[in-house]
Amino acid sequence: MGIASGSDITLEELQLAARNHALPLEALRHTITPIGLHYLLIHFDIPAVDAQTWRLRVGGCVERPLTLTLEELKARPSRTFAVTLECAGNGRALLAPRPLSQPWLTGAVGTAEWTGTPLASLLEEAGVLPGSVEVVFTGLDRGIQGGVEHRYERSLPLAEALHEEVLLVYAINGEPLPPQHGFPLRLVAPGWYGMAQVKWLESITVVDEPFRGWQQEHGYRLQESEDDPGTPVTRMLPRSLMVPPGIPEFVSRERYLRAGPCTLMGRAWSGYGPVELVEVSADGGRSWGEAVLGEAPSPFAWRSWMYTWEADPGEHELCCRATDATGQTQPLNPEWNFGGYCNNAVERVRVVVS
Amino acid sequence: MGIASGSDITLEELQLAARNHALPLEALRHTITPIGLHYLLIHFDIPAVDAQTWRLRVGGCVERPLTLTLEELKARPSRTFAVTLECAGNGRALLAPRPLSQPWLTGAVGTAEWTGTPLASLLEEAGVLPGSVEVVFTGLDRGIQGGVEHRYERSLPLAEALHEEVLLVYAINGEPLPPQHGFPLRLVAPGWYGMAQVKWLESITVVDEPFRGWQQEHGYRLQESEDDPGTPVTRMLPRSLMVPPGIPEFVSRERYLRAGPCTLMGRAWSGYGPVELVEVSADGGRSWGEAVLGEAPSPFAWRSWMYTWEADPGEHELCCRATDATGQTQPLNPEWNFGGYCNNAVERVRVVVS
Repeated sequence: MGIASGSDITLEELQLAARNHALPLEALRHTITPIGLHYLLIHFDIPAVDAQTWRLRVGGCVERPLTLTLEELKARPSRTFAVTLECAGNGRALLAPRPLSQPWLTGAVGTAEWTGTPLASLLEEAGVLPGSVEVVFTGLDRGIQGGVEHRYERSLPLAEALHEEVLLVYAINGEPLPPQHGFPLRLVAPGWYGMAQVKWLESITVVDEPFRGWQQEHGYRLQESEDDPGTPVTRMLPRSLMVPPGIPEFVSRERYLRAGPCTLMGRAWSGYGPVELVEVSADGGRSWGEAVLGEAPSPFAWRSWMYTWEADPGEHELCCRATDATGQTQPLNPEWNFGGYCNNAVERVRVVVS
Repeated sequence: MGIASGSDITLEELQLAARNHALPLEALRHTITPIGLHYLLIHFDIPAVDAQTWRLRVGGCVERPLTLTLEELKARPSRTFAVTLECAGNGRALLAPRPLSQPWLTGAVGTAEWTGTPLASLLEEAGVLPGSVEVVFTGLDRGIQGGVEHRYERSLPLAEALHEEVLLVYAINGEPLPPQHGFPLRLVAPGWYGMAQVKWLESITVVDEPFRGWQQEHGYRLQESEDDPGTPVTRMLPRSLMVPPGIPEFVSRERYLRAGPCTLMGRAWSGYGPVELVEVSADGGRSWGEAVLGEAPSPFAWRSWMYTWEADPGEHELCCRATDATGQTQPLNPEWNFGGYCNNAVERVRVVVS
């Protein structure tokens, strides 16, 4: 990873932007994101998996290692939750100077109904040994990053992995997982940024010392510089986004609308607790009004917001800002870090009213 | 539309790259592209459509104008075809200098099973009047391009519109169209580039003189310069792509693999006729070997190809080249035009073998 010297995007970043899909922001109108509009970040390649021969192995510091088929996993108790997932790098391309990686603007988010079996009961069946501290999730996707060849793998602290809402997921929006969302099985750990949501699971390993794989120790850390060991990225900071009003100009994506009352709507979420306040500004963040909040489809998903704006002719910069139950809110300006993570600065949408 | 002065991508292009999704090339392994991996080019915004109140209007130079509900369209005779669709701008970002628009590399393609009712029988029922020359398809998506506010609309010559494989489509891969693919109804005209495949159809209008809307007269033309009236973009030129072998480096997407026999595979298609030859080069296009061709899932879809390459240690540039039944083939180098259309130059994949 490096830092961009100019404001323009490099060919390497374009290659990443082409294969990793953002939510087009008008799709925020859907409470549950349709398949194909949910964001996708695929580190390496989507692996080809034969569900007939695929097995999930559960091992490490457990009394009874397990090997399960997909059918056996589907036969276990199931839960379905709407869960909002967001990439930890969402907003990276709005940082200056720009960390060189997937150049997300603000659309690296989506909310799906995920169906799976609770991880906790599987770990209970395996019997976690005393002294265990983390659970490592290993995917089938393999590649090279930071000069190190590895499978994508990440750990969760044991206490987090045992939360009842953490699922081993085999269906999205009522359908079998498509290849790009982790077929045949993936982790969904509500509240955490996307790097924790390991796809194409091959094994789950309970460990008695902190996991030090590349994606844990080098990737996904809040660092001031390359040499700073930094602190790990964990849960989603509060964020709100809006359906851009009016109509777009094709190339610039500038928005044009007619003067008069304009109903703005969007979604807001946080990995730390319910969103309790969404504010809207039509003057770039100088003055704010309070939006009306809708219900969330689950405790782990975004909630809708609405705000009626009296649009006067001229150019305006619309902003929205969420505050969650812990009091955390969105900053007006990005907070820079070396890897370009957790940029939850308020969304800014320029509109021309006539 | 303009031309980029430098080699780096502008913020405007990044905004387009984020919302318009490419096929990750490893997904070429699927004969039928799963929903969510098929390419998407959405000019303006995905419109919100209420299927209960939505109607298709068929009018213009016809004896009996029609208004149809979605249920009435679904009750008509249906056909299902696998069809390969490709954006006319595929490959644009590989041109130098680079036309400023959606900066596609090579992934703006996909093959789905589209289900719908033949357009020809609907036009027969409406009764096309003598002297009619084209059929105009108008979508519900509205925006501004080239300074002109318009709904997205495009025409087909009448004879093309009457081909039996031209469908008014309401399902993809056996499921109702998702919003991003044109819910509730879209056109699929096999063989033509994507600009003809109008989504979110609102009306079909038979006309007795050539349609001169912005997307027809200014967009999608092969021009030498901005002032050149140019010639219209129509059918897909032959192209082949490969599943990149080995494993990727995350940022550079360079490919790494072990020495030894390596089975390369990919897909090839043309809008002018069946692909009859795919050749593979491992030395950047200096020498070529013939790939083994598989069957196409329909006369309107790509066919697979396979080639066994003896990978020696070192750096190699893999290429593939398709030739169709009309004798058209892919050039080794891009052929430049002002709008950046129809760049079907051979794919080049750099690999490092150890």
